[in-house]
Amino acid sequence: MPSEFDLIQRYFNWSSPDEQVRLGVGDDAAVLALADTRQLVVTSDTLISGVHFPTQTPAHAIGYKVLAVNLSDLAAMGADPAWFTLALTLPEYNTQWLDDFSSGLKALAEHAKISLIGGDTTKGTLSITITAMGLVNAGQLLLRSAARDGDLLYVSATLGDAAAGLAVLQNRLVLPDAAPCLQQLNYPHVGYRESQVIRAYAHACLDISDGFLADLNHLLEASSVGAIIDLDAIPLSRSLQSLDRQVALRYALSGGDDYALLCAIPAHRRLAFETHMQNCQMSCYRVGVLTASVTGIVTSQQEVLDPQGYQHF
Amino acid sequence: MPSEFDLIQRYFNWSSPDEQVRLGVGDDAAVLALADTRQLVVTSDTLISGVHFPTQTPAHAIGYKVLAVNLSDLAAMGADPAWFTLALTLPEYNTQWLDDFSSGLKALAEHAKISLIGGDTTKGTLSITITAMGLVNAGQLLLRSAARDGDLLYVSATLGDAAAGLAVLQNRLVLPDAAPCLQQLNYPHVGYRESQVIRAYAHACLDISDGFLADLNHLLEASSVGAIIDLDAIPLSRSLQSLDRQVALRYALSGGDDYALLCAIPAHRRLAFETHMQNCQMSCYRVGVLTASVTGIVTSQQEVLDPQGYQHF
Repeated sequence: MPSEFDLIQRYFNWSSPDEQVRLGVGDDAAVLALADTRQLVVTSDTLISGVHFPTQTPAHAIGYKVLAVNLSDLAAMGADPAWFTLALTLPEYNTQWLDDFSSGLKALAEHAKISLIGGDTTKGTLSITITAMGLVNAGQLLLRSAARDGDLLYVSATLGDAAAGLAVLQNRLVLPDAAPCLQQLNYPHVGYRESQVIRAYAHACLDISDGFLADLNHLLEASSVGAIIDLDAIPLSRSLQSLDRQVALRYALSGGDDYALLCAIPAHRRLAFETHMQNCQMSCYRVGVLTASVTGIVTSQQEVLDPQGYQHF
Repeated sequence: MPSEFDLIQRYFNWSSPDEQVRLGVGDDAAVLALADTRQLVVTSDTLISGVHFPTQTPAHAIGYKVLAVNLSDLAAMGADPAWFTLALTLPEYNTQWLDDFSSGLKALAEHAKISLIGGDTTKGTLSITITAMGLVNAGQLLLRSAARDGDLLYVSATLGDAAAGLAVLQNRLVLPDAAPCLQQLNYPHVGYRESQVIRAYAHACLDISDGFLADLNHLLEASSVGAIIDLDAIPLSRSLQSLDRQVALRYALSGGDDYALLCAIPAHRRLAFETHMQNCQMSCYRVGVLTASVTGIVTSQQEVLDPQGYQHF
């Protein structure tokens, strides 16, 4: 294994056009000039081989996804991506793997305009931790605790695709058109652009990583409200529509790994919000309403939905 | 294993007296108000069981040390500790281990006045990544690239103790008085207080983690100077003084895991610096001088020292 210096120099020493990065990779730490009045948003997420992605996942996809899940947390706060550190634990020094991993990471980093400012490389079981930082105007911060009675619930993308893709990979599901689901599993769409619109309207927002019902429940608990969900409005991709509807709904409601944004929009801003999203060619699907009159999550038909998982059949 | 939420709530949801932490553990990300003109310094370090600490290391020491190595990087930049995130990968949910780990972590966090603001917990081989953030006035930033011809080289603590402690644990060394070395291995002294003095005098600074010669070489390469080292001035603890001198020097020069600060002080400020450190009851040892007239590292007797390791015997 070459020295950590050589490895960083070769794979991760991208030049950054970000003038707030006064010092990036190469010293004991990175240095950022904070020349504005915005707040700093910080999130950390770890992906472990065999736990958060199948061991056979291509390195390019791993690089993309580990940044994606962190960008999703920034988007869920309404923050613009700014900087990230990378802590990379590798079982061996594999130049092809590192080329592919750093390409996938860099592709999304450049797209999302987030600068790699430092990190650490170590030897061990494959595991990657990214700590991502974003900036947000205090007034546009999207908390999960600020939803209110009467807000409309939206999701920013179809649900269940990544979970169905994983099930296909693990031979638990047969899906005629699996490619879009595998794509969403390996290269999840992240709502950092959607977040820039949502933060102008939403009372509250989070990203769906544990599954729609589980994450909705986090929002409900934090905001002390209940939710009525219209199951017919849950957006399903064409791939999932080819499945038995109850099976598809199970993936959509409880699958997880979606990274769609779930947000609470005040009812009187419905038209403005939907129009704005449409004008930006972004998807949004109204899936329910928040209410103080119920506890937890119920369907329009008053069925109780268990946030631990949709086990309706 | 309980949910991540329960685990965080129980072990890592410390209340923070830091009013810049607008939102800590519990949402998608943490939010920091940056109400001053200082620069933000960011560092990430990962410790892996069996690689960075022996597998039998007490959990309390692991919690302490993983924060210590990150604080050491902040100190090496002249930054005051501010906030950190914790990414914790655990093989199992062991409440005793978590109690001990979080106690060790919290003890140092409180001492260094650094707030835990978020993180991630996952299941896998024991591995911990901390991303630490600090604040520094731009003029007091300590880079490794700013040392100059004629600067005096100082270290802030005795060297080689942790490496000797590890050798004792691994039955590679017999040491009559091993306890201080084991203490330094498990609970390294971190120079965040020393840094506050050093940054008022030093041209350059870094922390010694790879070994004195290896890290000195990083400073020399970054600053384009050479160094003349007085081997008789390398500070050795009483424990190491009991060893054969050549053996002790090998640990001190190439052992690593020291976390002492190595800094370059302009010669005309020697007296003021030494007096200030002494008045604050902090150690500093003058071990050499930087010069443009040599390449690499030589002794006062003109012997060349290999930065890859001291193999003098």
